[in-house]
Amino acid sequence: MNVAAADWIAADWGTSNLRLWAMRRDDVLEMRSSDQGMGAMSDPGDFAKELTRLTEGWPALPVVACGMVGARQGWVEVPYRAAPCAAIPSLTPVPGDPGGRPVLIAGGVMQTKPADVMRGEETQIAGVLAARPDFDGVICLPGTHTKWVRVSAGEICHFQTVMTGEIFALLSRQSVLRHSMTERSSDARIAAFADAVDTALSRPHQAWAQLFRLRAAGLIGTQAPGAAEGALSGLLIGLDLGAARSYWLGEQVLIIGAPRLSALYASALEQQGATPVIGDADTATRAGLHAAWRNYQGQS
Amino acid sequence: MNVAAADWIAADWGTSNLRLWAMRRDDVLEMRSSDQGMGAMSDPGDFAKELTRLTEGWPALPVVACGMVGARQGWVEVPYRAAPCAAIPSLTPVPGDPGGRPVLIAGGVMQTKPADVMRGEETQIAGVLAARPDFDGVICLPGTHTKWVRVSAGEICHFQTVMTGEIFALLSRQSVLRHSMTERSSDARIAAFADAVDTALSRPHQAWAQLFRLRAAGLIGTQAPGAAEGALSGLLIGLDLGAARSYWLGEQVLIIGAPRLSALYASALEQQGATPVIGDADTATRAGLHAAWRNYQGQS
Repeated sequence: MNVAAADWIAADWGTSNLRLWAMRRDDVLEMRSSDQGMGAMSDPGDFAKELTRLTEGWPALPVVACGMVGARQGWVEVPYRAAPCAAIPSLTPVPGDPGGRPVLIAGGVMQTKPADVMRGEETQIAGVLAARPDFDGVICLPGTHTKWVRVSAGEICHFQTVMTGEIFALLSRQSVLRHSMTERSSDARIAAFADAVDTALSRPHQAWAQLFRLRAAGLIGTQAPGAAEGALSGLLIGLDLGAARSYWLGEQVLIIGAPRLSALYASALEQQGATPVIGDADTATRAGLHAAWRNYQGQS
Repeated sequence: MNVAAADWIAADWGTSNLRLWAMRRDDVLEMRSSDQGMGAMSDPGDFAKELTRLTEGWPALPVVACGMVGARQGWVEVPYRAAPCAAIPSLTPVPGDPGGRPVLIAGGVMQTKPADVMRGEETQIAGVLAARPDFDGVICLPGTHTKWVRVSAGEICHFQTVMTGEIFALLSRQSVLRHSMTERSSDARIAAFADAVDTALSRPHQAWAQLFRLRAAGLIGTQAPGAAEGALSGLLIGLDLGAARSYWLGEQVLIIGAPRLSALYASALEQQGATPVIGDADTATRAGLHAAWRNYQGQS
């Protein structure tokens, strides 16, 4: 189908990237992306410019967006709803219909005890629930800030965020450990990952002490290539699983995230006897935006 | 006393800084420093140039240096000695007597099980032992990479490194938590530090989950100014203490490091019933270099 047949545009506008899909109901007609995430915008006017630039040649259709675009530093600050709340996000229009069409931004969800926030993941959860309205269990959304979300009766009940992805990026690229990171796949890497997950779950303080050893072992020549990266990843994901034990232990776990990272979380969970299922993140995002858009049209 | 009366030069040449002291035996006649640490050197020849520049006007005396200047990426790679070993470092001359005077570099110490390395701290430990040859206990050297070192009978027995300072710097300056860091001293900060140390020691997985809460609490407005920085510092130092428990529990602990950081470690240890003593880091460095220099002269 040609993009001229599209009837709305889905947008995932995070801190680092913008991704747009020209949609006809649930079907993707065309996808475009850029690295102009919220973090690259120096002025609120930049959001409209980037949206106009990236939709050039597309019909002037309503845009439904989720992610950090709705944060305080984003285009329009959309208030958080407080959990427990329905997963399906409420939409807030950007004033003035930029580019001559409605632009609607999904609001995030907050929790006061313990303090936590999400922006974007609520939309993916709504997308999961659109396909499986009776889902009752835990959704794990690994990423820069991994979220563990208890979902029941169509609601986000409570959730927990761990900075696993961001800390992995800082340690592997900017700390002294960057000198020890080598190619990504090897048997040594896989074994080191599994060992590190176990250490981090059963002896978290020792996991903390093990970080520098990844560098030291390389300096004194006692480390197989790939092992340090596997171990770093395993230590951080293991600590994350330790912190989220009440979320996954004995629960049905659905993982929604980037394929490679989702596979690592699944492997770590399986090692602990859990039986997680992996779902597609982009499908969930688009389905959630679609559900929010239908809901908004039904209300107005 | 005038710098003309100096008889040797002490140098602490780390990754980020170079500090020089014109010495007459144990006495400091003049101190100079620059930000030209090992990390700023793009060529091995830069080390001689920077040393010549920073000692301009000083007599051409022997220079005794410790720190990353002796690392693989340093001026001359000085091999590690294997612990257990005498604390007093062996010195390796830079070939060709750059600037027309001997330049001697102290070697670091390695450990194979578990893998660990130090460069510079062995010199500070030798300095402590020069003043107190009978010291039997643990020396904690907090910093970018905090070291816990078991010392007995003049020897470095075993040690453990945790990346506490480096991780604090990355999280407080480059992660999403940077938005939550505020001024450094407040009652809220002190209380948050103490609570976080307790959490990290008794529930390390929960400490891991608490990191993102420092940001979330700021976003939803439930956090006192200063509390996030105190909590971050307390979580990381508490995890460090948890990993090093066998080092400090029931032991005599001497802390050698920057004053503010040493005070934080002392406070965290006192909270756990330990009675640490704080010593001066620069005094220890110079005394260790002096001990190594006298030892070297006695050998040659």
